[in-house]
Amino acid sequence: MKSNAERPKFGVGTGRGATTYRSAGVDIEKKSLFIRGIARLARSTRRPEVLAGIGGFCSAFALPRRRYRHPLLVAGTDGVGTKLIVAGLAGRHDTIGIDLVAMCVNDLLVSGAEPLFFLDYFATGRLAPGQANSVMAGIVTGCRQAGCALVGGETAELPSMYKPGDYDLAGFAVGVVDRHRLIDGKAIRPGDRLIALASSGFHSNGYSLIRKVIFDRARHRLTDRVAEIGGRIDELLLRPTRIYSGVIASLRRRVPDRLHGIAHITGGGITENLPRILPARCRAVVDRASWRVPPHFRWLQRLGRIAEEEMWRVFNMGVGMILVVPSQAERRVLAIARRAGERAFPIGWIERGRAGVRYRMEADG
Amino acid sequence: MKSNAERPKFGVGTGRGATTYRSAGVDIEKKSLFIRGIARLARSTRRPEVLAGIGGFCSAFALPRRRYRHPLLVAGTDGVGTKLIVAGLAGRHDTIGIDLVAMCVNDLLVSGAEPLFFLDYFATGRLAPGQANSVMAGIVTGCRQAGCALVGGETAELPSMYKPGDYDLAGFAVGVVDRHRLIDGKAIRPGDRLIALASSGFHSNGYSLIRKVIFDRARHRLTDRVAEIGGRIDELLLRPTRIYSGVIASLRRRVPDRLHGIAHITGGGITENLPRILPARCRAVVDRASWRVPPHFRWLQRLGRIAEEEMWRVFNMGVGMILVVPSQAERRVLAIARRAGERAFPIGWIERGRAGVRYRMEADG
Repeated sequence: MKSNAERPKFGVGTGRGATTYRSAGVDIEKKSLFIRGIARLARSTRRPEVLAGIGGFCSAFALPRRRYRHPLLVAGTDGVGTKLIVAGLAGRHDTIGIDLVAMCVNDLLVSGAEPLFFLDYFATGRLAPGQANSVMAGIVTGCRQAGCALVGGETAELPSMYKPGDYDLAGFAVGVVDRHRLIDGKAIRPGDRLIALASSGFHSNGYSLIRKVIFDRARHRLTDRVAEIGGRIDELLLRPTRIYSGVIASLRRRVPDRLHGIAHITGGGITENLPRILPARCRAVVDRASWRVPPHFRWLQRLGRIAEEEMWRVFNMGVGMILVVPSQAERRVLAIARRAGERAFPIGWIERGRAGVRYRMEADG
Repeated sequence: MKSNAERPKFGVGTGRGATTYRSAGVDIEKKSLFIRGIARLARSTRRPEVLAGIGGFCSAFALPRRRYRHPLLVAGTDGVGTKLIVAGLAGRHDTIGIDLVAMCVNDLLVSGAEPLFFLDYFATGRLAPGQANSVMAGIVTGCRQAGCALVGGETAELPSMYKPGDYDLAGFAVGVVDRHRLIDGKAIRPGDRLIALASSGFHSNGYSLIRKVIFDRARHRLTDRVAEIGGRIDELLLRPTRIYSGVIASLRRRVPDRLHGIAHITGGGITENLPRILPARCRAVVDRASWRVPPHFRWLQRLGRIAEEEMWRVFNMGVGMILVVPSQAERRVLAIARRAGERAFPIGWIERGRAGVRYRMEADG
């Protein structure tokens, strides 16, 4: 008999039921193989705090309590939106899991939290083990990049709901931060500096518009090679979302009091996400001339004749995270971020004014 | 300007992006109304530990640390399987959210954990506010029954993936238990007694088989009234899954050392779920004559000519949870459970043997 300790907390089923009723044509062997495969993969994300042997109903994680005097749990859930559809069209499923983890974990990081663990929900019409394994491998890669343990998940087969080959994904991440280390933007002051951490591409936002422009309007194919983007369209569109766990951990460790605010530039772009952390009477000034927007954004803009302001309200324009730090810490923070492997660059400052973003163009003073 | 404190952590979008690009025909007003509605609903699940004002990227929850010396976080994720499809056919969406919370929270309760908070993922083709509000109202009801705070969620619009009117749901729950109070089945000994807590119906398991039998095979309609089940088929099939937070909390408080093990009877029935908590060399004996299986299970069995053993491997047969307690605590535990509003009854014991379930029939000794 297998002990409970080895039994993974990963379920497969319509609910979980389908593993049992063979009359509905469910291939039990296929599923238990799949579950064992996930459990094996997930072991590579194991952290010492993960407890085995608590029975097969849920997962347990010992809070690293000595490190946290007043632990706040932070949690977030997200999907990857229609980037999924691009993965489906390309038949490439091994990186979308990284996007899933990134979307959840980057949301936690802005609070100063250390990501602890992750769970996934994977729903499909009929389990295709090759596809599902690719997706799971991506999730595992994402969890390793994020430093969080994959402690459980649910795989649902809903044949009447999903078309063959289609699937949906949801992720759920939990992290912890000590109350006095919580980063919530309240410390932001006029005079603070904005430091950008470069994005790796479109991340997981704006894909409805991207697909409309590239495929419906410009009639490109996924495999087209475009000089301006320096490669093939599928490679550009499926490039995984960057996970900023490493750099944020370095900054938390080395300059914990210098992080006045962090904004994750997700759907809504800088225009909508940066204001989410600004206190009253603090306005962000972003100098658009201070960096070169990566060429793939400009290519898409031309292709779709998208207005400039719309671009800044939908896409990250090359900026995945924005750190708000006191001016005297700017150089130090830049150095730490670069040492952690990020492309980091100053993009603006905080001024007194109505909360929001004022974009500064090349021309004006 | 709205302060961060009032900004809910509920996202809507394809990812979150869709709120912003009007060119894709997204109705922003509809969505922000929907989000405000959820935030209002969610307030009724608020617990004092929920922190507002940490910015709009994630949710924070202060761990009730004084109550936990060595806090273990437990987490689980689940969906509701094809019970969703029945809700869709019936056009009744106000209770499926209770099922979602139940499936996640009941999995946590078996470890002795106190459920703390919940997040949902709701994916649909195009947001239908009436339907979505009903679903959310059910989730809120479930969270209130479970005693956990609804702290966030993601609503994804994926028009090319979901048929109009279709949606999928995933839930994530987090709870906490002190390490020395963790219930993992290791304390189970031969001679311990099994106490059942009654289920409220099929809960959320076996719905592929249920639909096949009732609709494909017996050609019933959802609105058919059946004497044997004492009502209409839709009422039976959509009866929400019972959430056992209240009774487990009472037991945890009053007889914390008496709960040797708890099994959630979910997909796989007693046959597959009870063994999940049994230590080596402990076998469960379930006396099937000790309670009357509710008539709707027998009606379905006859309708589908389902073998007896198959029934016990798919359905809960009237038992939603099984508590394993020392024999001298049996009466006390029964009394506490009944006072907490549960139908509780003894159904068997633990004997020495190969881990698994031995069913005792009326006839045998």
